[in-house]
Amino acid sequence: MAAPLSPVDAGPSADWQATLPAELAEHGTLVHTRPGQALPLTLGGEETVFVVRMATLLFRLTLADNLRQGVTLLYPGDVFRSAFAPPGPGANLVSLTAGEVLRYRYDAFSRLLDTNAGARAYFDMAVARQSARQAIHLAAVGQLDSTQRLVTFLIELATQIGVPASEGRVVFELPLSRGEVAEYLGLNADTLSRIMSRLRNEGLLSQPDRHTVFVKDLTALAALSPASESLMSARRPNMSGPRP
Amino acid sequence: MAAPLSPVDAGPSADWQATLPAELAEHGTLVHTRPGQALPLTLGGEETVFVVRMATLLFRLTLADNLRQGVTLLYPGDVFRSAFAPPGPGANLVSLTAGEVLRYRYDAFSRLLDTNAGARAYFDMAVARQSARQAIHLAAVGQLDSTQRLVTFLIELATQIGVPASEGRVVFELPLSRGEVAEYLGLNADTLSRIMSRLRNEGLLSQPDRHTVFVKDLTALAALSPASESLMSARRPNMSGPRP
Repeated sequence: MAAPLSPVDAGPSADWQATLPAELAEHGTLVHTRPGQALPLTLGGEETVFVVRMATLLFRLTLADNLRQGVTLLYPGDVFRSAFAPPGPGANLVSLTAGEVLRYRYDAFSRLLDTNAGARAYFDMAVARQSARQAIHLAAVGQLDSTQRLVTFLIELATQIGVPASEGRVVFELPLSRGEVAEYLGLNADTLSRIMSRLRNEGLLSQPDRHTVFVKDLTALAALSPASESLMSARRPNMSGPRP
Repeated sequence: MAAPLSPVDAGPSADWQATLPAELAEHGTLVHTRPGQALPLTLGGEETVFVVRMATLLFRLTLADNLRQGVTLLYPGDVFRSAFAPPGPGANLVSLTAGEVLRYRYDAFSRLLDTNAGARAYFDMAVARQSARQAIHLAAVGQLDSTQRLVTFLIELATQIGVPASEGRVVFELPLSRGEVAEYLGLNADTLSRIMSRLRNEGLLSQPDRHTVFVKDLTALAALSPASESLMSARRPNMSGPRP
């Protein structure tokens, strides 16, 4: 079996780790996550903040039994403050993958930002970037048809955690189960499987195994969703320049 | 004709105006808005920030012709940084009502926050509150049926701009046209009218005129959406205490 593909080797998070301000990196509590692990939104009754070092997280809202919606996926470099979630038991933050996050009490985090302009700018930019991504996700769920929604999701992953292969080709691991993807996109799981088959049959992608997606023609895939262009320009600023 | 109902007289924005840090109030450019006015997201090529003094705004994303999604409604006290929108021509911010907003260049706004802890806390809290509301909106669009979505929207307005009448009753003006409400909720306009009629027939609300909603039993209305509790607890913190 080949070694698991990891974006850390060559992808975005390698760029990102160079940009995390040292003061934030030093003062967080390093939490090793396992897939499916819930990250508590309070710590001793106090608000928390998480900075994603190396993992994919899902912020999810449960409105009632069987009404769960994935709100935002968080990638390396992203931040989550528990006040971003509505108060109450329906909000939770889950690590979808094994990985590492930095955890802070909000008060301590806030003091770090007050004394470090770089950390402040980092936090503000991460929040803005996530807000832009969440807006695109909302527009996709509200306005796009099933195929467009799934393509939007695949383009989001390709942009955020994809590892570039040969020209126009990108590989990434699916951090969500079929049911979780369906929940994130507001689709039913059978519809999802049917569209995925069609994309495979059309030669746009293949799946070496259930969890891996190999996009064979990113441009052709992206052309299937009107949200692709926004998503691809909303990726991390430090990814937009040429790679060294 | 009676004087138009305004939340400024008795409602949330009166509370809010007392909490806007003086430094922010002093340094913004006061913009008087008319209904439908677009607020430019850049100013001489630079990023902008808006603080809503007295108006309802809509942040909207256009993915393609005929695919427009209302992402977030902004109320008095809310803030909008243009980086919250994805880059590109598809994002715009519109004032739905006549009112007042404060406008800043982002650089100047950012310096104000650096030198004023109160302004910083105000901005961070506004961003968190809006993020929580946007998450609920996404869950509503993704998971709720048509009636639940419309009720969620009415509860949001009642919570944010409603003027309390006698016990359990709330009055507010609809800041969006029927078409805009449909777009915000991802519903079709006829479905919307049908549900609105049903809510009127069931005695939950009445409409003294097309733009005014008089909720006759807030508790009974709220019970029709699983998102109501979250929305009502996500309102401005300064509203949660007893009124003087």
